[in-house]
Amino acid sequence: MTPLLPDFSRSVDVVCVGNAIVDVLAQVEDDFLERHSMVKGSMTLTEPARARIIYADMPPAIEISGGSAANTAAGLSSIGRRAVFVGKVADDVLGEIFAHDIRSAGVDFVGSVAHGTVGEVGTGRCLVCVTPDAERTMSTSLGVAAQIGPDDVDDSIIDNAKIMYVEGYLWEDPLAKETIRRLMRSAEAKGTRVAFTLSDGFCVDRHRTEFLELITEHVDILFANTDEICSLFETDSFEDALSQSTGLSSIVCVTRSEKGSTVVTANERLDVDAVFVVPVDTTGAGDLYAAGFLAGWTAGHDLETSARMGSIAAAEVISHLGARPQADLAKMMEEL
Amino acid sequence: MTPLLPDFSRSVDVVCVGNAIVDVLAQVEDDFLERHSMVKGSMTLTEPARARIIYADMPPAIEISGGSAANTAAGLSSIGRRAVFVGKVADDVLGEIFAHDIRSAGVDFVGSVAHGTVGEVGTGRCLVCVTPDAERTMSTSLGVAAQIGPDDVDDSIIDNAKIMYVEGYLWEDPLAKETIRRLMRSAEAKGTRVAFTLSDGFCVDRHRTEFLELITEHVDILFANTDEICSLFETDSFEDALSQSTGLSSIVCVTRSEKGSTVVTANERLDVDAVFVVPVDTTGAGDLYAAGFLAGWTAGHDLETSARMGSIAAAEVISHLGARPQADLAKMMEEL
Repeated sequence: MTPLLPDFSRSVDVVCVGNAIVDVLAQVEDDFLERHSMVKGSMTLTEPARARIIYADMPPAIEISGGSAANTAAGLSSIGRRAVFVGKVADDVLGEIFAHDIRSAGVDFVGSVAHGTVGEVGTGRCLVCVTPDAERTMSTSLGVAAQIGPDDVDDSIIDNAKIMYVEGYLWEDPLAKETIRRLMRSAEAKGTRVAFTLSDGFCVDRHRTEFLELITEHVDILFANTDEICSLFETDSFEDALSQSTGLSSIVCVTRSEKGSTVVTANERLDVDAVFVVPVDTTGAGDLYAAGFLAGWTAGHDLETSARMGSIAAAEVISHLGARPQADLAKMMEEL
Repeated sequence: MTPLLPDFSRSVDVVCVGNAIVDVLAQVEDDFLERHSMVKGSMTLTEPARARIIYADMPPAIEISGGSAANTAAGLSSIGRRAVFVGKVADDVLGEIFAHDIRSAGVDFVGSVAHGTVGEVGTGRCLVCVTPDAERTMSTSLGVAAQIGPDDVDDSIIDNAKIMYVEGYLWEDPLAKETIRRLMRSAEAKGTRVAFTLSDGFCVDRHRTEFLELITEHVDILFANTDEICSLFETDSFEDALSQSTGLSSIVCVTRSEKGSTVVTANERLDVDAVFVVPVDTTGAGDLYAAGFLAGWTAGHDLETSARMGSIAAAEVISHLGARPQADLAKMMEEL
């Protein structure tokens, strides 16, 4: 059985739906994480008061656009694929920065802008602490990002898209959940394939039942890392998690850090190597793997080639600070 | 005749006064500058409408704190010297970013914050376009930065400082000029040495007569690059400019890119080599030279050692994107 293919005649490759976030990124020592009781490698939703305390203790930082699905959209565009990003920003400087960066990356940004009192919580921001081992630990203040209400997105945005890609991080606000469920139903009706990423172990922990239901009902391509897939099935064994995930959706892609990735369908398992680079900052590794994989898959490549493209894109993004590509990914893919 | 020495018993090394600016930095091709009629290597004050047009055409950018004298303060702190920064930000996200970054760099930020309608023009920002030759071309929207009024600074900030360092970029707003003149007179009365940087060729062009008067009357240490010192004396000859600048202030330091720097006093001329690195982004080179030089001079080192410290600090900052040090400058100075 071949996994469900996208409709190659459509002009938009991927519509990415996610939190519009600006990253506030600094390199810290390990004791910084201990001092603030942070779990290395995790993403924690952080109240403003706590975020202020963490930020005050952070070294000089740089601000750089992020957001998981937004990074994937930027990656797809860098590979030369047509991507749309749907998200929400406030009418403030960070919102302006986010919109500029995603548009100038070649992505069609159809997000809405929250004005006035609604926008007062501000554009989402994420304090990204990068330790000397290149691991990133994130404290996120979602601001307006999570509030993607039913009126913020029109179903027609997916009409001409091969794939709609949604990040699990978005699964916090009741209105956003309603919007995503509606979009997924609409995608099914319109023949748009649905891709979903589990985003983070704690995120899976909070929403396990709903995620399992959502994936079983709607998701064609699932992205996860080993922690997340193990968390989904509440097991410590990767192999156990993998066998449980077989058939959960048409394609399951699990990223495994320096071990590369494993792609599973109903009747196939592929283990694909990572591309070796000296890691500087792993922020965006999973996002760019998804970009590479989806760029391959929407271009009609097989699973193995698509996964290799994921490895290349992930390797580029971990070789420098920041979660969006700096090199010309299209050129790097040509060499494959 | 030995140049005037600072009062070594004072606990603050340098009080830096300048524009509080957040840089919006992107790498562009040369044709970007042509398209927007920009003069490579210059700093241009830019109206909001024009800044919007330039920004819309810029590739994805990073936001990173800048400001000439602020970069110098951050450099001094990185070398282990005690620096204070005086500047003005608005009550907005960029103001928050600027204040965080300078404080976490170890600098005492005594700037004022413009609230309400006064602050509506926002914290200053500078579009920094870095071309493949590592040269930076800047378009600045000063916002509240230039409006350092007489009530924003108390003369007592310089009481315990060896040196007060002022950037020429600040010489735009009549109230700021009044404030600086008052601070310089006060410095003289209190035995605080005054250092000044010409900042930019166009800046010198706009204010030549006032700058010459200011330097002759108040300045003990003058910083300039070759363009700026030539512009000051309206000559194309570096040697001519240098001979005219002899005795203008107690010490004149001229940075000369890959040729290093030349330091002139009433009876001495020193040519000091640059430290070779592969330049990535020259933003902040002059600012960090001043930091290194002043760190040496306030520690009682001779002119040559101070100039060498300037070369080391400048080399570090041009080896990466952004105008503030990323390496431990104190450690690099130890090796000298």
